[in-house]
Amino acid sequence: MTSNSSSPGTNQSWGGRFSEPTDAFVARFTASEAFDRRLAFHDIQGSIAHATMLARVGVLEEAERDAIIAGLDEVRGEIERGEFPWSVELEDVHMNIEARLTAKIGITGKKLHTGRSRNDQVATDIRLFLRDEIDQVAMELARLREGLIELADREADTIMPGFTHLQTAQPVTFGHHLLAWQEMLARDHERLLDCRKRVNVMPLGAAALAGTTYPIDRHVTAELLGFERPAENSLDAVSDRDFAIEFTAFASLLLMHMSRMSEELVLWTSAQFDFIDLPDRFCTGSSIMPQKKNPDVPELVRGKSGRVYGHLMGLLTLMKSQPLAYNKDNQEDKEPLFDAVDTVKDCLKAFADMIPAIEPKKASMAEAARRGFSTATDLADYLVRKGVAFRDAHEIVGESVAFGIREGKDLSEMTLDELRQFSDTIEQDVFEVLTLEGSVAARNHIGGTAPDQVRAAAQRAREALAALTGGA
Amino acid sequence: MTSNSSSPGTNQSWGGRFSEPTDAFVARFTASEAFDRRLAFHDIQGSIAHATMLARVGVLEEAERDAIIAGLDEVRGEIERGEFPWSVELEDVHMNIEARLTAKIGITGKKLHTGRSRNDQVATDIRLFLRDEIDQVAMELARLREGLIELADREADTIMPGFTHLQTAQPVTFGHHLLAWQEMLARDHERLLDCRKRVNVMPLGAAALAGTTYPIDRHVTAELLGFERPAENSLDAVSDRDFAIEFTAFASLLLMHMSRMSEELVLWTSAQFDFIDLPDRFCTGSSIMPQKKNPDVPELVRGKSGRVYGHLMGLLTLMKSQPLAYNKDNQEDKEPLFDAVDTVKDCLKAFADMIPAIEPKKASMAEAARRGFSTATDLADYLVRKGVAFRDAHEIVGESVAFGIREGKDLSEMTLDELRQFSDTIEQDVFEVLTLEGSVAARNHIGGTAPDQVRAAAQRAREALAALTGGA
Amino acid sequence: MTSNSSSPGTNQSWGGRFSEPTDAFVARFTASEAFDRRLAFHDIQGSIAHATMLARVGVLEEAERDAIIAGLDEVRGEIERGEFPWSVELEDVHMNIEARLTAKIGITGKKLHTGRSRNDQVATDIRLFLRDEIDQVAMELARLREGLIELADREADTIMPGFTHLQTAQPVTFGHHLLAWQEMLARDHERLLDCRKRVNVMPLGAAALAGTTYPIDRHVTAELLGFERPAENSLDAVSDRDFAIEFTAFASLLLMHMSRMSEELVLWTSAQFDFIDLPDRFCTGSSIMPQKKNPDVPELVRGKSGRVYGHLMGLLTLMKSQPLAYNKDNQEDKEPLFDAVDTVKDCLKAFADMIPAIEPKKASMAEAARRGFSTATDLADYLVRKGVAFRDAHEIVGESVAFGIREGKDLSEMTLDELRQFSDTIEQDVFEVLTLEGSVAARNHIGGTAPDQVRAAAQRAREALAALTGGA
Amino acid sequence: MTSNSSSPGTNQSWGGRFSEPTDAFVARFTASEAFDRRLAFHDIQGSIAHATMLARVGVLEEAERDAIIAGLDEVRGEIERGEFPWSVELEDVHMNIEARLTAKIGITGKKLHTGRSRNDQVATDIRLFLRDEIDQVAMELARLREGLIELADREADTIMPGFTHLQTAQPVTFGHHLLAWQEMLARDHERLLDCRKRVNVMPLGAAALAGTTYPIDRHVTAELLGFERPAENSLDAVSDRDFAIEFTAFASLLLMHMSRMSEELVLWTSAQFDFIDLPDRFCTGSSIMPQKKNPDVPELVRGKSGRVYGHLMGLLTLMKSQPLAYNKDNQEDKEPLFDAVDTVKDCLKAFADMIPAIEPKKASMAEAARRGFSTATDLADYLVRKGVAFRDAHEIVGESVAFGIREGKDLSEMTLDELRQFSDTIEQDVFEVLTLEGSVAARNHIGGTAPDQVRAAAQRAREALAALTGGA
Repeated sequence: MTSNSSSPGTNQSWGGRFSEPTDAFVARFTASEAFDRRLAFHDIQGSIAHATMLARVGVLEEAERDAIIAGLDEVRGEIERGEFPWSVELEDVHMNIEARLTAKIGITGKKLHTGRSRNDQVATDIRLFLRDEIDQVAMELARLREGLIELADREADTIMPGFTHLQTAQPVTFGHHLLAWQEMLARDHERLLDCRKRVNVMPLGAAALAGTTYPIDRHVTAELLGFERPAENSLDAVSDRDFAIEFTAFASLLLMHMSRMSEELVLWTSAQFDFIDLPDRFCTGSSIMPQKKNPDVPELVRGKSGRVYGHLMGLLTLMKSQPLAYNKDNQEDKEPLFDAVDTVKDCLKAFADMIPAIEPKKASMAEAARRGFSTATDLADYLVRKGVAFRDAHEIVGESVAFGIREGKDLSEMTLDELRQFSDTIEQDVFEVLTLEGSVAARNHIGGTAPDQVRAAAQRAREALAALTGGA
Repeated sequence: MTSNSSSPGTNQSWGGRFSEPTDAFVARFTASEAFDRRLAFHDIQGSIAHATMLARVGVLEEAERDAIIAGLDEVRGEIERGEFPWSVELEDVHMNIEARLTAKIGITGKKLHTGRSRNDQVATDIRLFLRDEIDQVAMELARLREGLIELADREADTIMPGFTHLQTAQPVTFGHHLLAWQEMLARDHERLLDCRKRVNVMPLGAAALAGTTYPIDRHVTAELLGFERPAENSLDAVSDRDFAIEFTAFASLLLMHMSRMSEELVLWTSAQFDFIDLPDRFCTGSSIMPQKKNPDVPELVRGKSGRVYGHLMGLLTLMKSQPLAYNKDNQEDKEPLFDAVDTVKDCLKAFADMIPAIEPKKASMAEAARRGFSTATDLADYLVRKGVAFRDAHEIVGESVAFGIREGKDLSEMTLDELRQFSDTIEQDVFEVLTLEGSVAARNHIGGTAPDQVRAAAQRAREALAALTGGA
Repeated sequence: MTSNSSSPGTNQSWGGRFSEPTDAFVARFTASEAFDRRLAFHDIQGSIAHATMLARVGVLEEAERDAIIAGLDEVRGEIERGEFPWSVELEDVHMNIEARLTAKIGITGKKLHTGRSRNDQVATDIRLFLRDEIDQVAMELARLREGLIELADREADTIMPGFTHLQTAQPVTFGHHLLAWQEMLARDHERLLDCRKRVNVMPLGAAALAGTTYPIDRHVTAELLGFERPAENSLDAVSDRDFAIEFTAFASLLLMHMSRMSEELVLWTSAQFDFIDLPDRFCTGSSIMPQKKNPDVPELVRGKSGRVYGHLMGLLTLMKSQPLAYNKDNQEDKEPLFDAVDTVKDCLKAFADMIPAIEPKKASMAEAARRGFSTATDLADYLVRKGVAFRDAHEIVGESVAFGIREGKDLSEMTLDELRQFSDTIEQDVFEVLTLEGSVAARNHIGGTAPDQVRAAAQRAREALAALTGGA
Repeated sequence: MTSNSSSPGTNQSWGGRFSEPTDAFVARFTASEAFDRRLAFHDIQGSIAHATMLARVGVLEEAERDAIIAGLDEVRGEIERGEFPWSVELEDVHMNIEARLTAKIGITGKKLHTGRSRNDQVATDIRLFLRDEIDQVAMELARLREGLIELADREADTIMPGFTHLQTAQPVTFGHHLLAWQEMLARDHERLLDCRKRVNVMPLGAAALAGTTYPIDRHVTAELLGFERPAENSLDAVSDRDFAIEFTAFASLLLMHMSRMSEELVLWTSAQFDFIDLPDRFCTGSSIMPQKKNPDVPELVRGKSGRVYGHLMGLLTLMKSQPLAYNKDNQEDKEPLFDAVDTVKDCLKAFADMIPAIEPKKASMAEAARRGFSTATDLADYLVRKGVAFRDAHEIVGESVAFGIREGKDLSEMTLDELRQFSDTIEQDVFEVLTLEGSVAARNHIGGTAPDQVRAAAQRAREALAALTGGA
């Protein structure tokens, strides 16, 4: 977008101010048509509403309005059919469409621009675009969350080791682990909808920077376009790019979460972990190494976190220290935003398709949970419940573990006599707490890993999701 | 925070697992006490609620609870008075306080840690800390917004040039410009409160990663601590650092806005712009160049945007690809968050103090607005209203401007005859639209720069601010 | 690039390992052909050298080598003429070219891949590509430096105000200011050539990750391709992306410098500064505001700093915590690198064209330097040379400035009697130091702003530049 | 650092320009003494050289120079002994030291500041500081590289699985893997020394921005301080912060590499990989889970990559779009630079201590390499050498692997008859290539994983390291 400007070669209206045509390289360097044509449909949507409003307040006659709307409908058709004659000389999407409209309907086409400027027009277009994309992102996000919730519910009883520091810590259920991922996404979903509120405000009517002298009615246009309200301040309206940054911040958090999920998926498909299988259709092989099956999708998603972080940083840098109102710098807002939108949608779609197809290898998970004395904490808690001070209990368990390391036995594999070497408080009932099942079942409170809690949490997650998507 | 761990020299409970003491450099390298002691009061707050809950569910006796609370009150006093014996050997704030408590009340002090771990404890502490800081940030932000609104109201009639591309564009009012800043901050304010919702969720009860086998009641603790609800998933609760990232993203947007305000303040105090005076108490001089008066405060605030962007990027990087649940990496969350909080509070305070004291140099502003043919658009609009086609109007104005450049006269300084050289549609009433006052008054719709609109916008801004802060 | 892999539908060699074809969306999501086709010529260059080496060591027969080279020449021709049948099903540039080669010359085409893998192949392609681009960037950078040096030499006597804190500080020459920009670029130029050394190392021969069992001679291939040496370690060779990060770090510093130059160009073309004119061909106008002439080029360059910073951050994030050796994440290295290269080249070209055409408005610059008591330091230094203590001198000047503010007179506009009110040490010779010319001429040491120094510095800069580019 | 400025309360020399004292909060907000006191020794070093030069050119008398040097020596002693009376009112380290010197030696102390300003002084101090720190960083880096090289040499025959996509790919030697890490660090080392060249340039003499009117000899001062040359341009000299950014970019690449090493160390100490033991002194345990031994050091180093990336981004943002010359923003350069320096030194020290103490678990590594058909590529290469076309060879191996999966046998565990089911080209000598030892030995070219190559590479690495450090 070149603010209210075009090259002399194409727009003689610049008149005597300019004494030479724009340098050819500069014309290409400063044009935005190659990427902002993506806003074409939203540009037309905004123009139709603007024309309707102008007729409502008497600036356009009804016939003029009708000619404009019919012309724009034709233009839309041309774009849809790939027949639109895009021209880099016309700099940006707005001039391309306006020139085409005027070619079709004559001088009335020029009247469309009354009471607006490209500064408020482009800001409006991006917001219309982003609002639509947010709605699509929200749908994919909901689909991924659903997939996680249903898989978690199915796997509420499947036991795997829980890790801290990537060291075996305590047994958890696979369903519980999946719901941890789901919680991350639930926060992202909320942030997305919070962001949408701030996207859904209308710049149109700010004109170049100060408003317009025409008797426009911004409430009418806002209503026609489904905006919650007109922006309060014209200078802010044309220079604000918060929405792009806030969306990209949402995307960065989302991709951060997905990079964590990806990291675990990659670990779990390694020969060393061997916790899950990913269906072949989400993997690729090797033409050199015939044994390979690579988890390309999570690897690529993990890598794409960098791309989105980069766009966030780029947009924050872009806006740093810019004086009001519109500056040409702002043309740089579109490419990172477009790419962030596409990346988010692709990554969500890939995961929403793939996650429900994960096949847990339950025996392997359970075996891993059994290794590493993962129920040591349960033994200590058992002793405390029998009246042993925690410090003493910890020492008893420490000695038991040392014995186990020497003998190559997990706590649950020791005999009662072996365990009682370290404390005669230990009785037959200890084996209930030393089993993986006993261990997870005992963490039986909201947020805990007990299978019943996991099922209840899945149900609450379903309801929370429905509450967010129900009205949308 | 060292997750559930301490060095053998200080904590013999590690028992036989370890065969040598921690390396001295490693002990210093991994300790967090030097910075996390800042969480001390919130750590005590959390511990008192935890002890209260433990007594409520019967895990502690009432006398034990009372001893713990009394002991913690003493510890708090010691910290407040600067008498607390901080020890780097005890690694972190949690172990320092627990050790001190136990020194005071004996073995009962150890019972406080029943049913929790340092993983959920530190996550709870940071959230309590951040919630309090958010409330303070919100207050300073409200104070700055108020200052802007009142100054804008006072300066609703003061005319200055509006710029696009830093070129004179159209006249605006100084009040209108200030309200553009205020709109930026209003979005930041909303984002801060959206962030607060997600901060205000309680990790306590997640224990190390999987929940606890003690019969805790997390709803009780949540209520005692003013949390909206307990976190839904224990694995997520101990590994989630979204709140730090989301706050830092808020801070980055805020500092971006303040860097824009700063840029303009620096421009405006330059000899070239000369639009405002900043009171001497916000500036510094030079011991070498006696004529200097430097706008240090806005310069420094502008510079501090880098610091906060850096923290955001650092935290996003920190969390990238971390497998669940707690990893030692997470200890790195605190310093950037603390520094972001302090930076935001300082910058807001500096601006909230300084902004109301800005002295606009009205004559200089008006003179600048008069230069640069800032009412050229008004003349074109005038001609259109008289029935001239916009394209023709633009050409007429272009010729008038060219004449003005040659003669050294602004449009408003030309005689009617001079203007009528270019179009005999121009009549005496043209001079109303060519004055700065006429130009701004004509942009008379919501969001426009007309003084009446500015005053109305100030009133709406007051109400919007009250709506946000009224209930807080 | 999909490491050594392709989809079953296209590459039946995966055999029994896979039980279902790649998901259609996944195939598109993971393909790189859309962007890595840009490496086609370098891929062919690398393949020709590889085939030559394979024949040299006896792995290929001479006739096979010749068939391969002839076939690749044909493929190159097809690509140059836009006739190459690119296929997304073939995933990446390497498979596209190999498949086309095999279609042309039969099974011998398959032998080209002996002793290499796509992992070392893509790393080699990017380095060949980047080396060429670095050489082009270096040429544009040298052209811009030359333009600055010549303009600086021409403007060695032109006086403008020097600023600190954007407040008038001391007079400097415009040539001196331009050479400050030139120094920034000189450091960038050195960094670029330092980066080139590390780019110019050959991964080929690392094969998938461990080297190959074929009797390859990597020194031969390296020499054929102009690489300084083969990479020392195969695991590192396929996983290293430092070169992309180091180039992007260079680019970030360069764009940072260009954003500073841009900021000043924007300031200087404002009505408030009015220090320079940019030729019309580097600016655009407004179809709404007939008086506007916008400095689009520097604004856009300033904005593009964000883009490049973002790519740097994205690439650093990408590589964070990746285990050895190749991971699919690495496919994300290309797009940011390509865009950084293009951005740098475009911005340099735009500036190298524009800078020599800057027209300083000398009268306006001198007038600004005269305002603001910019020679106050000179008066203090004069007094010190006459034996006055600095503290006393500063006070005398302070009083003189205060008098000047009251009377509306610069120091140089006062009479000798007026000046002697404050110190009778002041004599007729004071006026030599109070003139702008006297002030700049007095800073007559290496690095100082005296015109003679500026001319000498321009000459040294010319020589330094020649030393860098002479051998290239 | 407040450029050439101090608050009226402390520095009456500002005279009549200011009508009120600095606001108390502003004074604290803008002061830098709390962190820049770290530059004290380098400030004194710079001042002694400056005084010496001033005497050489006749601006100071010899007795004055001697008094200044003696006084500065006393000040240094006070700082070393912790007896220096730091004052935040004196704003920064420069004013603190100058005030103290003047308190000691009287008015002569004030003469020290002749011909310089705080703008060039602080830039000089930071460069002296950073040059010293770079030398220390280089030493630690060399120590870590040495440790890696020696361990690699010792473990040249130790076989482990090599991974791509974290899937077992081909066997490599542990020594080869360690040398991959070493190569990363070798590039970092080069970059550090490249950065040092650009740090080692002297700003002193640039004065406030334009040079000074005193007859200084900058070559003398540069020589006294060991700088390679004086900076060429005064405006650039006081505004350049490239050195801080370039160092932080070096640090970001280094920490990126160390995060990769850390990731692998964490993986390798997991129960699932179990490839190495880290000595207990580099780990911590858990007071809750008695079985835990956590790899805190690599986890924390991995996390610290975020911190350093953040500083890089912060500094790049800081400098974006700053007009020349010095602006107050630049005060924000020190804290990120100091923290980057400390982080780099700590992380390098921790690794240089820890790496040589890594204990590979050879049996476990070999067992993992044996799993996953890691010699499948060797079998295919064997067949190709026997005349089988690669495509056919791949298919034969694919079928063999499928058979192995069904039978639970690695390729090397099959009988000759079993292998010959798939191709009668296979003969007894196949078992040489199917062993892990045969596989690694066959990759016998520069950069390959063959033990002999690893030993030769270790020797070359030793020599390359010596070449870098020998002259330093």
